[in-house]
Amino acid sequence: MRTLCTSLATAETGSAVTLEGWVHRRRELARVTFLVVRDRSGLAQVVLPPGTPVPPEETTVRVTGTATANAQAPGGVEVTDAVVELLTEPAETPPAELWRPSLDVSLPVLLDHAPVLWRHPAQKARWELAAASLRGFRATLDGLGFTEVATPKIVESATETGSSVFEVDWFGRPAYLAQSPQFYKQQLVGVFERVYEVGPVFRAEPHDTVRHLAEYRSLDVELGFVRDHRDVLAVLREVLAGMVEEVASADEAVERTGARVPVVPAEIPVIHFADALTLVGAPADEPDLAPEHERALGAWALAEHGSDFLAVEGYPMAKRPFYTHPQPDDERWSNSFDLLFRGLELVTGGQRLHRASAYDAAIRARGEDPADYLAYLQAFRHGMPPHGGFAIGLERWIGRLVETANVREVTLFPRDLHRLAP
Amino acid sequence: MRTLCTSLATAETGSAVTLEGWVHRRRELARVTFLVVRDRSGLAQVVLPPGTPVPPEETTVRVTGTATANAQAPGGVEVTDAVVELLTEPAETPPAELWRPSLDVSLPVLLDHAPVLWRHPAQKARWELAAASLRGFRATLDGLGFTEVATPKIVESATETGSSVFEVDWFGRPAYLAQSPQFYKQQLVGVFERVYEVGPVFRAEPHDTVRHLAEYRSLDVELGFVRDHRDVLAVLREVLAGMVEEVASADEAVERTGARVPVVPAEIPVIHFADALTLVGAPADEPDLAPEHERALGAWALAEHGSDFLAVEGYPMAKRPFYTHPQPDDERWSNSFDLLFRGLELVTGGQRLHRASAYDAAIRARGEDPADYLAYLQAFRHGMPPHGGFAIGLERWIGRLVETANVREVTLFPRDLHRLAP
Repeated sequence: MRTLCTSLATAETGSAVTLEGWVHRRRELARVTFLVVRDRSGLAQVVLPPGTPVPPEETTVRVTGTATANAQAPGGVEVTDAVVELLTEPAETPPAELWRPSLDVSLPVLLDHAPVLWRHPAQKARWELAAASLRGFRATLDGLGFTEVATPKIVESATETGSSVFEVDWFGRPAYLAQSPQFYKQQLVGVFERVYEVGPVFRAEPHDTVRHLAEYRSLDVELGFVRDHRDVLAVLREVLAGMVEEVASADEAVERTGARVPVVPAEIPVIHFADALTLVGAPADEPDLAPEHERALGAWALAEHGSDFLAVEGYPMAKRPFYTHPQPDDERWSNSFDLLFRGLELVTGGQRLHRASAYDAAIRARGEDPADYLAYLQAFRHGMPPHGGFAIGLERWIGRLVETANVREVTLFPRDLHRLAP
Repeated sequence: MRTLCTSLATAETGSAVTLEGWVHRRRELARVTFLVVRDRSGLAQVVLPPGTPVPPEETTVRVTGTATANAQAPGGVEVTDAVVELLTEPAETPPAELWRPSLDVSLPVLLDHAPVLWRHPAQKARWELAAASLRGFRATLDGLGFTEVATPKIVESATETGSSVFEVDWFGRPAYLAQSPQFYKQQLVGVFERVYEVGPVFRAEPHDTVRHLAEYRSLDVELGFVRDHRDVLAVLREVLAGMVEEVASADEAVERTGARVPVVPAEIPVIHFADALTLVGAPADEPDLAPEHERALGAWALAEHGSDFLAVEGYPMAKRPFYTHPQPDDERWSNSFDLLFRGLELVTGGQRLHRASAYDAAIRARGEDPADYLAYLQAFRHGMPPHGGFAIGLERWIGRLVETANVREVTLFPRDLHRLAP
């Protein structure tokens, strides 16, 4: 019967125990050799009898021995009289010493050796925060009557957002990787009223920045019967609070990563795009916020509202996708928002058009033919409610949480302009 | 304040209520007109005052009126003195009458009009079972110490399983859609020991059968420190039990779909591949089970063990992927299994090789060069435990649960050789 490393602390002193894990560290002193064993739960200390061959770090082992109290061991208990059985060949030397407190390697080394370097407890803890966030995301939405859906990642046309798309050879004809589940999640509001999806999205934009990936995880939400985008923002607030709650409960991972867990305010502060431009001293006809504007707004939100989060609403219609609902009292602006988290755009959301006639007009205004959107527009011709939604970028969320410079440092196997492996 | 249709039953008689939803059905009688309104919770009955214009079915409406007891209304309460406000233009006539008890349309009509026909309560309930299954899958694995991961869907090479792959134009160079997260979930066992992922997988095999899709949802699990594939099967048993528990608790969806909820036996019966061949009267050198063999084995498991599930272990090594662990006492066979659910292959799983040297040998035996698998093999050279895992096809699971002929009938927007839209 296997004992997990962290459960060793509660093993009865003198009892026989079996650990299984990786050799995290070996310490050969003059009269005694220690092995630190790592498994999914954490670390445990093993005392090797003199003369025992010492397997190299990262070798997988089964250790049988006696649980023995030792105030200096992790959890106050170590394994003595140990017999070590190798489960594979001795491991090759890892590209970095995984037992050191921090993983001090360059970004290319980190990414090239991802399968091994993610084993470092502080690195691994970053992804544990991602997994915790996903739990909080889903639990919140399940509690609010949302249905999880699965939408196709291969689509017939590249018309959705105007971003660049990847082309796929689909049994000899061209198809495209979905840039987002936008069209499908809207159609499914017609079915389930409230839907969410966690899935990969693909962007072929040749951005080579610290915050763009060509494939990333999008946490998509869409809901019907909203008054406007403020109802959507209210759901986003609940979702963020649920994510933060799960992150906070992963306290060991928080400690290992040094993540700063934010407080989600009862109501997320909102500023209109026009006011945001004024605030940052940008010209009134700027169509978008530059990264330095976002940082300035983030600092303002913290100073003015004590909030790590700020919603900027009303983005110019000219810069938003065609399905965006205009601001009813001034159609230059939109009923949409970006959510900044610590000065970085984390979420885009808003209210969508819901009348079939409004879609026809918006598509014609782009010089396109509504007939090219036949499948999508079916849902609207057959009755759709006022609706809206948002999408959270998982990697950006974790990146800001642990305050990494580059989103690639929190992505298990990132894909970008230059990287397709490992 | 909106009242959900099914909450109307608990509204105080005489109180003002507001419903929001779709016109599910209109019934114009000589002296009175009824509207049945549908929202995410279910149906409610509205009595329209004489002379009120009646919106067509599927139009989205806001109904304000008075909650009034009526034993014949759903839930015993209906809305009277109703004022109906249209939220969009009147809807076009749907491709089938969604208020009829069953959706009696051909498969092409169902698929072409998916965005509208999924609204039928019995059709929608099929996917609600899928969503419930996902909840059960994750909750079980979270409870067993698994970490949810996200692996790339775009990969550099097409070497994994030998199935056909879709090629992607990746910034001008060829890449491929992942056929499964197999290589990545194994590497991540090296990090987290126990991992799972729910995600799309892509198969370019030009199968045009009732049980194949070109894109489907794979529920992938992988775990370290197993003795053999029987440990993997034991986790699969727990996962299936968790999925069934959540499905059973979605009792309305079960009733609407007519799903037969299975009992997961405390231990899933197992038969060796060689014995399975004998049992179905197939030649002893058959390398695989044909669909009719699977059906016969399913019938046998039910008759012999009272089980809807049967694991067939020991599949010939010649037919399994190169990373498969052989059966230690007879290397013609493998430590792998297929799980049949009601006579259909639902899950493939097993123990994998874990020694770097075993990978080198297996890859060379295929006439390939281990250097072509550099990224993948990193994990093994740096210490991997004995491990294994499995993958469940979500659509097949739901298909068997509700006993549909074609897996496309339970997929929101299926993709196959012929279909890329809607």
